[in-house]
Amino acid sequence: MKRILSTELPAHAGRDVVLAGWVHRRRQLAVVSFLVLRDRAGLAQVVVRDDAARAALADIGEESAVRVKGSAVANPAAPGGVEVVDPVIEVLAQAAEPPPVELHRPTLTASLPTILDTAYVTLRHPRLAAVHRIAAAAVSGFRQTLEAQGFVAIHTPKIVAAATESGANVFALDYFGRPAYLAQSPQLYKQVMVGVFERVYEVGPAFRAEPHDTARHLAAFTSLDVELGFVDDHRPVMAVLRDVMAGMVEAIRVQAGAAVGSLGVTLPDVPADIPTLHFTEALELVGKGLGEDVAAEPDLAPAHERWLCEWSVREFSSEFVLVEGYPTAARAFYTHPDPARPGYSRGFDLLFRGLELVSGAQRLHRYADYVAALTERGDDPAAFIGYLDAFRHGMPPHGGFAIGLERWVARLVGAANIRETTLFPRDLHRLTP
Amino acid sequence: MKRILSTELPAHAGRDVVLAGWVHRRRQLAVVSFLVLRDRAGLAQVVVRDDAARAALADIGEESAVRVKGSAVANPAAPGGVEVVDPVIEVLAQAAEPPPVELHRPTLTASLPTILDTAYVTLRHPRLAAVHRIAAAAVSGFRQTLEAQGFVAIHTPKIVAAATESGANVFALDYFGRPAYLAQSPQLYKQVMVGVFERVYEVGPAFRAEPHDTARHLAAFTSLDVELGFVDDHRPVMAVLRDVMAGMVEAIRVQAGAAVGSLGVTLPDVPADIPTLHFTEALELVGKGLGEDVAAEPDLAPAHERWLCEWSVREFSSEFVLVEGYPTAARAFYTHPDPARPGYSRGFDLLFRGLELVSGAQRLHRYADYVAALTERGDDPAAFIGYLDAFRHGMPPHGGFAIGLERWVARLVGAANIRETTLFPRDLHRLTP
Repeated sequence: MKRILSTELPAHAGRDVVLAGWVHRRRQLAVVSFLVLRDRAGLAQVVVRDDAARAALADIGEESAVRVKGSAVANPAAPGGVEVVDPVIEVLAQAAEPPPVELHRPTLTASLPTILDTAYVTLRHPRLAAVHRIAAAAVSGFRQTLEAQGFVAIHTPKIVAAATESGANVFALDYFGRPAYLAQSPQLYKQVMVGVFERVYEVGPAFRAEPHDTARHLAAFTSLDVELGFVDDHRPVMAVLRDVMAGMVEAIRVQAGAAVGSLGVTLPDVPADIPTLHFTEALELVGKGLGEDVAAEPDLAPAHERWLCEWSVREFSSEFVLVEGYPTAARAFYTHPDPARPGYSRGFDLLFRGLELVSGAQRLHRYADYVAALTERGDDPAAFIGYLDAFRHGMPPHGGFAIGLERWVARLVGAANIRETTLFPRDLHRLTP
Repeated sequence: MKRILSTELPAHAGRDVVLAGWVHRRRQLAVVSFLVLRDRAGLAQVVVRDDAARAALADIGEESAVRVKGSAVANPAAPGGVEVVDPVIEVLAQAAEPPPVELHRPTLTASLPTILDTAYVTLRHPRLAAVHRIAAAAVSGFRQTLEAQGFVAIHTPKIVAAATESGANVFALDYFGRPAYLAQSPQLYKQVMVGVFERVYEVGPAFRAEPHDTARHLAAFTSLDVELGFVDDHRPVMAVLRDVMAGMVEAIRVQAGAAVGSLGVTLPDVPADIPTLHFTEALELVGKGLGEDVAAEPDLAPAHERWLCEWSVREFSSEFVLVEGYPTAARAFYTHPDPARPGYSRGFDLLFRGLELVSGAQRLHRYADYVAALTERGDDPAAFIGYLDAFRHGMPPHGGFAIGLERWVARLVGAANIRETTLFPRDLHRLTP
């Protein structure tokens, strides 16, 4: 008999069924025992009345993997309205000991370090699993949206000869006797690939030897990268970002609806036109709103970002707000300046629920501009040989952005710490599991 | 006016159009000049008759990025039957020098090292770009097939505390003062995640400090990983592999049909049932076929794999053949033995066009079996703490496989060297670009 999933039980009422999954919880009452079975789709209630079977169940600890053959019968009190009776329970893998944290509680009460130390089993908790289902759906929506718009998926090297983003915060490794580094981002590679495919994206790991032990920083994260060519400025890049956000939210709604519901997450609407402010306008608004003198600020402070998000919800009912035209000094060296406003760039940030979520920009596209920018930063352009050379061969005006998957999911589900939305996080102190 | 792609020209005959792309080639004849424009979709012919415009074109070197406004007119001699006349050519980014290799030749004649050294521009050659379009389509088909079957995408750590596959061939790095390694595969993590989602997949980089300088080995590659739980043996795993191969071939046909056509690639049929042999049967057949005494062989030699593939085509018209039941000694420590045949395992290989393409297996799923297997291998199970612990908490019988993306594409397009199908390859000697 073919195994069915717990969610398929209602359609099988009155028939014999086979379920498989984990012993989520056992309850032994006076004359009956209950086994709550957890599979990838949800939970199912199995009712055990036979005395020998009840005695056997007492020895099958929580999280044991089992296969259950029985009869599906309607019971309005059971989850989904159907339960399994007269079961034959086959143990596929006996749990050697109880899980370190009780997984059948509605929420995990253990501390975050304990949960992370035992992630190899705590991730099975439905609330934790739900977070990662949402992440998977987000990536699916990201890819679908971009592939529909002609973007090509690429996989660029994670072992590189030079640091892209900054000389600090890189992990060094011994590469067959030569120094090498883990890529902090696919930045220059995705730009080079604009020369090949015009429109590219990458989903891959990015590494930062981040010495700060905060709730927002990790040593490794999943970067959702996009880059597109033949743009006149950063506006077409922001338009793709808008579509990507909408595509991700929609994919989460469709593919991870149950996870969204179980976590009580409210998915945001992504407006067709996300409210957009120039940096100087944003600063002026914030200054008035907060009653602060912000005229000389080189960047938006966290309190400013929070205020702008509240303002956007109030004025436009939009949880997303775009700020464009950041001061050049506040942005990465490859950011294109705004020719019309000296000192300001074509860099933008997308703010969401009080925080910067995405950074993007039109990039420099001329070789001489790169040499000048690197030299000004104190870097030796020769260290970037092989990447910068691409810009000697006709690179069209282009731009792009990067979304940190774990940070985006954390904002979405309201996680206080990015480690809650990262599979097996890596940080200053954490290298296992 | 909105830019159109070169492939959209035929639908715009008789109208004004805007194209954008790269100067693929110029030809100056006595009274007319031709500009062949290359964009992400293909090539377009632009006819320049105006003397001033012809003089200007002489200064716009190959690979310059340009925007062309002109009139689309039918000309049976032009590619696609429509060309652009009376153009106004705007230079978006002037090429500083000619490309190191002539990109307008039908095939690149430079040596592979030269092509790889200048990959930042040689990848623009239509034949090289076509290879990577096929790779992107393959990944797209991989994901689609698996998501339709309930698999969840995961992103597991690439910085790990212990070597999974073997103690040798790992890249070591300094992780905040502690030793750490680059993951050789997501093997144990994907197994742990079977405990969470039952069915998982990952597309991500894998690292091997491969000291062999061959046409088949790289220091980093893109691994397409699959793992699924609640299997009775390795057969359901092979069934998923079959569907994944079919899904990838179909996605390549649909999404990269032009690339397939331009390279003259023959896509294989993936039979509903791939011919499957036990290792001992395969060895016996090969022994008879080649007239060799192979009875004591512990594994299939390359010549054996070639012979089996030819046999499969001859007997079953299948370019794919599965060999199952390899000797346990020839497989990774986590491979499940075949209880019915001591000395043989539930490991399998998929052979394609003369080579092993995919390795897979049912895995061990009991903690004690892992401790025994690691100890037998001479490893300290304590080094795997945090991974092996998952197997103390009820891990169902499970199995999976991994496909090296670059190797698969190399077989498909008939590339002699895996570097031809890798974006910016990394090997013993190569760390840039």
